[in-house]
Amino acid sequence: MKHFDVVGLGLATLDILVQTPRLPNSNDCFPIAALEMQGGGPVATALVALSKLGANCNYLGSIASDDTATQIISELHRYGIDTEHCPKRDSGVSSASVILVEQSNGQRAILFQKSTSQDLQPEEVPLDLIKNARALHLDGFFTPAAIHAARIAREHNVLVSLDGGAGELMWDELTELLPLVDILVVAKKFAFETTGKQDILVAGMNLLNTYRNQQVVITDGEHGSWYWDRHTHFHQPAFQVDVVDTTGAGDTFHGVYLYACLQPEWTPQYRLKFASAVAALKCTQIGGRKGIPTLAQTQQFINSYQN
Amino acid sequence: MKHFDVVGLGLATLDILVQTPRLPNSNDCFPIAALEMQGGGPVATALVALSKLGANCNYLGSIASDDTATQIISELHRYGIDTEHCPKRDSGVSSASVILVEQSNGQRAILFQKSTSQDLQPEEVPLDLIKNARALHLDGFFTPAAIHAARIAREHNVLVSLDGGAGELMWDELTELLPLVDILVVAKKFAFETTGKQDILVAGMNLLNTYRNQQVVITDGEHGSWYWDRHTHFHQPAFQVDVVDTTGAGDTFHGVYLYACLQPEWTPQYRLKFASAVAALKCTQIGGRKGIPTLAQTQQFINSYQN
Repeated sequence: MKHFDVVGLGLATLDILVQTPRLPNSNDCFPIAALEMQGGGPVATALVALSKLGANCNYLGSIASDDTATQIISELHRYGIDTEHCPKRDSGVSSASVILVEQSNGQRAILFQKSTSQDLQPEEVPLDLIKNARALHLDGFFTPAAIHAARIAREHNVLVSLDGGAGELMWDELTELLPLVDILVVAKKFAFETTGKQDILVAGMNLLNTYRNQQVVITDGEHGSWYWDRHTHFHQPAFQVDVVDTTGAGDTFHGVYLYACLQPEWTPQYRLKFASAVAALKCTQIGGRKGIPTLAQTQQFINSYQN
Repeated sequence: MKHFDVVGLGLATLDILVQTPRLPNSNDCFPIAALEMQGGGPVATALVALSKLGANCNYLGSIASDDTATQIISELHRYGIDTEHCPKRDSGVSSASVILVEQSNGQRAILFQKSTSQDLQPEEVPLDLIKNARALHLDGFFTPAAIHAARIAREHNVLVSLDGGAGELMWDELTELLPLVDILVVAKKFAFETTGKQDILVAGMNLLNTYRNQQVVITDGEHGSWYWDRHTHFHQPAFQVDVVDTTGAGDTFHGVYLYACLQPEWTPQYRLKFASAVAALKCTQIGGRKGIPTLAQTQQFINSYQN
């Protein structure tokens, strides 16, 4: 079996992005600025970011049998992401969203369709795929399969990374999964809800102490991100850019942060700075994926950036 | 060169149909009932209807180079429609629409993107393709090419059919094109605007006398349609069905009416009844194409229909 840098187990969707002068009323008919279809989903977009930076990635999830599924998979292949271990379902529609982005303010209205295909099952997770990877990235979808994969990863010293808050974790699933996670990166809202705390500094320490993760990162959009491990704690401000669309910024951050964790010579400070830079650059173009830069572009942006 | 029953010269688009409980406000995020992608465009959907009924069809238009174009063309191929004479453009985006259909009342809000590819040009219309067809169907897009094709058709006794009012005809283009048309089928709004009359019976006679078409049909949705030729005039009521979505009902009517005109044994009355029946059946499913019935289904519907 082929060895991958990262196996991502979670959601892959199609985003239909509509850049519109305004939201429609009944019987309206007017031209829009742009219409774009780009794949989405927390794990799938994280893998695209990893792959663009040069990591060797595999996507694992269940695939519906509709045209949308074909579009989702062929885009992953274009980014060089392997999907050969995904079980294919005979029926059901794929996850997809229509995202109306208002041109005046960049605000988004999201109309989503959930997949009606059967979830990825624990017995569909190939043991060799996980144990031969350097890292496993999860997003809280297909949770029984994700917990099973995280256990395999732990036994074989494969790093486990979780995008907390994107998926649909129940409390008991969460308490089972979180202690299996090495790299826990969560949005502020998720950190507050999980810990019951209302202060980022308290919530971060609480997560680290409760679930004994190697490292915890809390993100808060334009306010930047916070890092904790056993030895260090610090804050990384967000990079200031002209924001066109924030779709997928969090997914991208997670993928890039994991990429950074796989670079043994990088300090925690540079890991967070690097992930913040890529997430910011992503927001300068429409859609969750098009704006994701390469390694060289990111380094150039960081070097030339003046606060 | 292959001989076709119908060559359609005009617009092919992609419709993204969203069946939604309500229209969105800023920052909304909610689930929708259905998301469907179906090809659209007046001429392209008319050809799908013709093809489903058994006619042998060719689509002629310019094709952009984006993923949407690939989707548009592969759907036409699935319906058995030939596209081999379409010039391909190196740049530009395809025509596409996001159509939000409100579940409560079936009303539609349409957000559209116009193609930025170069139009089909008159010199790109293959002479043999047109002169060997039984009919040419136009929709008011790519007008210089459409006028050129209509002239060829006229010279070679190929029927010319026009979906008036769908496209973007300027007044001088209209007055050049209309006298070249044998089968003129227009919506009430177009008939009123073109003739300056505000009465369907007056407008229909006015069109027939001004442009000397073989036959004129005016459609008015649920109020039915009206027919004129040199000898006859009558009204066809609309069929009553449970309407889910009216997208493409007009396009379908045009295609089916042309199909009916190619059946030499059918009376004008049966032609209009048949086209009305297919257009009504189309409205019982979402999207412009999925609900279009076969010949046998239509005949069965007409026979079993009780007013």
